[in-house]
Amino acid sequence: MSAPDPLKLSLNTATIREKWNLAQAIEGCARHGIRGIAPWRDQLAAMGVKEAVRAIRSNGLTVTGLCRGGFFTAQDWKDDNRRAIEEAHALGAQCLVLVVGGLLPGSKDLPASRAKVQEGIAAILPEARQAGVPLAIEPLHPMQAADRACINTLEQALDTCDALGEGIGVAVDAYHVWWDPKLAQQVARAGKERLLAYHICDWLVPTRDLLNDRGMMGDGVIDLPRLRGLMEGAGYAGFHEVEIFSKLDWWQRDPDEVLRWCKDRHLAT
Amino acid sequence: MSAPDPLKLSLNTATIREKWNLAQAIEGCARHGIRGIAPWRDQLAAMGVKEAVRAIRSNGLTVTGLCRGGFFTAQDWKDDNRRAIEEAHALGAQCLVLVVGGLLPGSKDLPASRAKVQEGIAAILPEARQAGVPLAIEPLHPMQAADRACINTLEQALDTCDALGEGIGVAVDAYHVWWDPKLAQQVARAGKERLLAYHICDWLVPTRDLLNDRGMMGDGVIDLPRLRGLMEGAGYAGFHEVEIFSKLDWWQRDPDEVLRWCKDRHLAT
Repeated sequence: MSAPDPLKLSLNTATIREKWNLAQAIEGCARHGIRGIAPWRDQLAAMGVKEAVRAIRSNGLTVTGLCRGGFFTAQDWKDDNRRAIEEAHALGAQCLVLVVGGLLPGSKDLPASRAKVQEGIAAILPEARQAGVPLAIEPLHPMQAADRACINTLEQALDTCDALGEGIGVAVDAYHVWWDPKLAQQVARAGKERLLAYHICDWLVPTRDLLNDRGMMGDGVIDLPRLRGLMEGAGYAGFHEVEIFSKLDWWQRDPDEVLRWCKDRHLAT
Repeated sequence: MSAPDPLKLSLNTATIREKWNLAQAIEGCARHGIRGIAPWRDQLAAMGVKEAVRAIRSNGLTVTGLCRGGFFTAQDWKDDNRRAIEEAHALGAQCLVLVVGGLLPGSKDLPASRAKVQEGIAAILPEARQAGVPLAIEPLHPMQAADRACINTLEQALDTCDALGEGIGVAVDAYHVWWDPKLAQQVARAGKERLLAYHICDWLVPTRDLLNDRGMMGDGVIDLPRLRGLMEGAGYAGFHEVEIFSKLDWWQRDPDEVLRWCKDRHLAT
């Protein structure tokens, strides 16, 4: 397997969001020669969609995903997802990442919550297709099943895709799926058409927080070269998007330093 | 579905281990009318196996499992598991619970670690069969894949059982498996013969620690009556073993109070 192409590195802005707004992140990517970016919608709203589109285009960046749609178990899911599709369209995003939402409010009924999620995706899928925005279901780690996403394995995500048809695939985040005994099988099953995004970071041992203690690539236990090999073997040729939620470490550092680490460590993934 | 039978409640001594040694736990179970107990081996060693056997028998308790064998990715796994089998035999334990171990030392190779685990179980299985001690693979939550157990789903555990033959089954711990989209399917697949133990507690939202922030039944989001229904539907008629690792809450309380809560909340699971 060849080394990763530096031109395939993308920055998910969550990685440096504590210190940089979206305009700064765009400039930072350009300055560091990072060719992809994945913004979050709150930052996009703060900057304004038009201005963000202008800055991203003028710097020649590829939008590897918009974070995020989903939360189909929340109250205002429909309008919010419609707006997300419009924004992803405006940005020319390669996909709209769906974090599907956890248990229905006040409920312990996981099967019902999962059914509601599938209904919700089905409801917005026609608009996404019309807008030319692929929807990417991101299976989240099982430790986030209750509060963030009740789709927790690639197999489950792909079963959902199978049920829904065209215009939908998966975002494979190393952090969420690395443990899965069916990882190789399900990445292969997904195939080029449905592998819409690839997110990288690392799993730290010990992990001190369920949400915000992700590691820089190479600092944890995920066999990232193996996973990239599985992705490429299945036909994926897109970006490698670094997404690090790290309250205790990386969010406290100078973003220019963080980007240098990302570029350096990416070469070994 | 009928209410749980109070006579099926078992106490995993991890629940009160900060304040009670094994002798106190045995007396406590007897005093509270709890008919099952699952001791840990360090406590067993401290009390002495003979004395523990005597106290457990004289109080008429059922040993619903011995915690634990496993850790096949560690150095001294073979001798340690042999001793565990002997102890489980001496106690008349219904099973020896296997926490299989995480990644091989210094390795990121999950498939190789999993292969090593299967080899290890295969190596000790003949002795377990001879001793009449069923081995119960406990799939652990994926968040513990790196450091505690690289068997992380019921499906994976049952695939391992299929490969190994007689004398081995699974311990279903609600905390570890509640999120699994294939839970119903795999519990049914396991069937009466391979469902060797059923552990209960609850998943708290938020969860503040990956290891030691489990909740009392009813305080979290796990649909325990549904899971009990699945277990009973598959033919399980054994004990319901409460196992709560809770540094921040239950371990700090008076164990007599904890046992009252266990009995009370068990009736609603």
